[in-house]
Amino acid sequence: MEQVTADVCVVGAGFAGLAAARRLAAAGREVVVLEARDRVGGRVWNRELPDGTVVSTGGTWLGKGQERMFQLCRELGLEVYPQCDDGDHLLCLDGRNRRHRGIPKTGPAALATLGWAFLRLNLMARRLPQDAPWQARRARAWDARTLGQWLSHPLNVPSATAHTLLQSTMNLLFCTDPAEVSLLGALALARGGGGSGFGYYTDTRKTESHLVDGGAPELARRMAARLGTAVHLSSPVRRIVQNTTDVEVASDAFAVRARRVIVATPPVLAGRIHFDPPLPAAHSHLRQRLVPGAIIRVHTQYAEPFWRGQKLSGQTLAPQSPVPITIDQTPRSGEPGVLSSYAFGAGAVRLGRLDPKERRDIWLDALAERFGPEARRPTAYLETDWSEQPWSLGGMVAHFPPGALTNYGSALREPVGRIHWASTESATLMHGLMEGAVRSGERAAREVLTAN
Amino acid sequence: MEQVTADVCVVGAGFAGLAAARRLAAAGREVVVLEARDRVGGRVWNRELPDGTVVSTGGTWLGKGQERMFQLCRELGLEVYPQCDDGDHLLCLDGRNRRHRGIPKTGPAALATLGWAFLRLNLMARRLPQDAPWQARRARAWDARTLGQWLSHPLNVPSATAHTLLQSTMNLLFCTDPAEVSLLGALALARGGGGSGFGYYTDTRKTESHLVDGGAPELARRMAARLGTAVHLSSPVRRIVQNTTDVEVASDAFAVRARRVIVATPPVLAGRIHFDPPLPAAHSHLRQRLVPGAIIRVHTQYAEPFWRGQKLSGQTLAPQSPVPITIDQTPRSGEPGVLSSYAFGAGAVRLGRLDPKERRDIWLDALAERFGPEARRPTAYLETDWSEQPWSLGGMVAHFPPGALTNYGSALREPVGRIHWASTESATLMHGLMEGAVRSGERAAREVLTAN
Repeated sequence: MEQVTADVCVVGAGFAGLAAARRLAAAGREVVVLEARDRVGGRVWNRELPDGTVVSTGGTWLGKGQERMFQLCRELGLEVYPQCDDGDHLLCLDGRNRRHRGIPKTGPAALATLGWAFLRLNLMARRLPQDAPWQARRARAWDARTLGQWLSHPLNVPSATAHTLLQSTMNLLFCTDPAEVSLLGALALARGGGGSGFGYYTDTRKTESHLVDGGAPELARRMAARLGTAVHLSSPVRRIVQNTTDVEVASDAFAVRARRVIVATPPVLAGRIHFDPPLPAAHSHLRQRLVPGAIIRVHTQYAEPFWRGQKLSGQTLAPQSPVPITIDQTPRSGEPGVLSSYAFGAGAVRLGRLDPKERRDIWLDALAERFGPEARRPTAYLETDWSEQPWSLGGMVAHFPPGALTNYGSALREPVGRIHWASTESATLMHGLMEGAVRSGERAAREVLTAN
Repeated sequence: MEQVTADVCVVGAGFAGLAAARRLAAAGREVVVLEARDRVGGRVWNRELPDGTVVSTGGTWLGKGQERMFQLCRELGLEVYPQCDDGDHLLCLDGRNRRHRGIPKTGPAALATLGWAFLRLNLMARRLPQDAPWQARRARAWDARTLGQWLSHPLNVPSATAHTLLQSTMNLLFCTDPAEVSLLGALALARGGGGSGFGYYTDTRKTESHLVDGGAPELARRMAARLGTAVHLSSPVRRIVQNTTDVEVASDAFAVRARRVIVATPPVLAGRIHFDPPLPAAHSHLRQRLVPGAIIRVHTQYAEPFWRGQKLSGQTLAPQSPVPITIDQTPRSGEPGVLSSYAFGAGAVRLGRLDPKERRDIWLDALAERFGPEARRPTAYLETDWSEQPWSLGGMVAHFPPGALTNYGSALREPVGRIHWASTESATLMHGLMEGAVRSGERAAREVLTAN
């Protein structure tokens, strides 16, 4: 096995790991990055349609306040441009497609309920200490409850339509049944959205407004390129041994001896590394529990974005459909037309079990219900099921199940000797987004730089 | 890498794997068992005190209705004898130690509440289909709730004392904060206790009545011995590749080619194997979610079981203590005196972080509060922290977090092509016990024997 030495070893070349390595390299530290996949970017991934059109299949959009991502794009010479937003959005409910701009047309009772529910959740979120939600006064009670149960309580969400919309929105935010998500954990995400709480994540004007030219993965590629030979692909880390003076990080091919290590993988994968000595129980149990949800994302390609001719934006929400979300992902040039569509949580798990032909039929039927028969005849159809990716095991972000934050939350960022932690799940701001990943990586780099 | 062929490969040599292999071998099948640890028994483990006294540090007691375990003991020539139960038990509450036999002395209001809460839980449990709790009429609502929240609801448990007792009892049954456990998941455990529901697990006359001479691990050792060279220790399985005709199971040292494989490890460890093709999402997500709790078990040794002189049984429940449970584990010969004591869940996690000296002091103080100063001066002190065991990652049993059963439950036993599943967590009866492990292994063996 090849032996390498460095000041710092970074495990994982997603945005968290790359941002950490970039900061450390800029401060003159010798860094080695070990990445399990044969590419950088982690949960951010460019794939190609058969005609060579590149589509982003993971983290894609940048929104307001995501300063570090915009800054990195500038530093690395990547343009950012607004998501095409012309035309009407569709809300598909109870067999009807309702066009809207801005506020969806769901009837005043549902809208009022929806607004009231979000307002209450956001007020609760504001009461969380941003760095330590487990210290909130009501933390234990909120962490013993699931988001799903809160949403199902008729006093919280009295309108059935509002409940359908909320359940679906939360299912897509967490890529899983809200019954799996701690109420406290859900509020922690909202807290990381800043002043607008959940609104930050649900308002497409704030979260999904800008695209990176060439795709967000191109930014990861350029960050890695600047690190040169420090980044080793196809090097899954199996074992981290630490003593009082250094750490040894062993992948299948390399053993890196370094002063410190930053583990910048999704939490559940961090938990699968063999640590010697074993991690403190809180660190081990937390990382076992922070599991991802499920997401299938499909890109369908058409000669042109035909929905624009119908004055549709391509953005649709259909809570009762197996494919609840679509969004226009046509390249900047305006052709070919590309629709990105999603299944989440239990729906994605169910679709994943079907044979590919059957799944494709259901999927295209769902698109045709919104965009007409033309949607059923794409020139290309590309599926990305994140649950099948062995170095993701699901997507897009891990959620906090009940009890995790109050019992083990302090182990989220707390270093263990020479081991430091990054990943968007450990971010206190923009948690779950690419911005959170970058911030977590830079925070871990600061820890390393200020450590003895 | 050494290549081996067999009819069936079994992964894991705990009771589930050993019972499966025993059945298959008896039916004339060639079996290879791959075990990650350097010993058999899994969550059942004999350790030695310095003077050579052997103590069982994992699954230890057999109870009523555990027919398969008693049968195996008979088949393998192991005697079973009753747990010493002379003297009074102690209930330590609010600084007072109350002696009792049978029903604890907690005052009539607390007792009534306790009885009422268990009655209600058991009635709910009876409404679950034993093989498919996720199909119960109220499954979705119960799976969106945590056991912790149910217990905290003043209508369910109006007495504070009863709440303290229930919270502590559930914490020890699941080795974790009831806030982490789905109400449906908790009821599924009770359902597996047969007609007495939770009573089966909480009534020490039913669950913890008999000991195996030499310890339950001796039974595992004898089962393995009968399998001879088929059992390979220190062979952690990393990868399972299947095609239409066979499977290849790769450990660090061996590659086994077999017609079928039974994965008989704790679920979270099964989920860490690299499967090719990837598991269906439901199977993968379920195994990520079935995580164990935390448990530290300490054996303290004394020249003799001095508490018997005080007419104490050694069995105590102290819900407010860092060490909430003790039980007499003196060898059959009557000396030396051995007390087994436990910390569970968040309490175990907190104690695990302290330095060993500090933890020992807290532990012995807790024993002295019940048994007097003599308890503070053991001749030996042996700690087993199951969270530090890399092939357990916690103990003693995985729980179902909210949403797991309703969204992924059907993947608990469902084979994936040539891959079958065992482990006490997949048992429908005596789930979580050694008996459940044996039953699950024998069920998996039947699946293999009846498959083409």
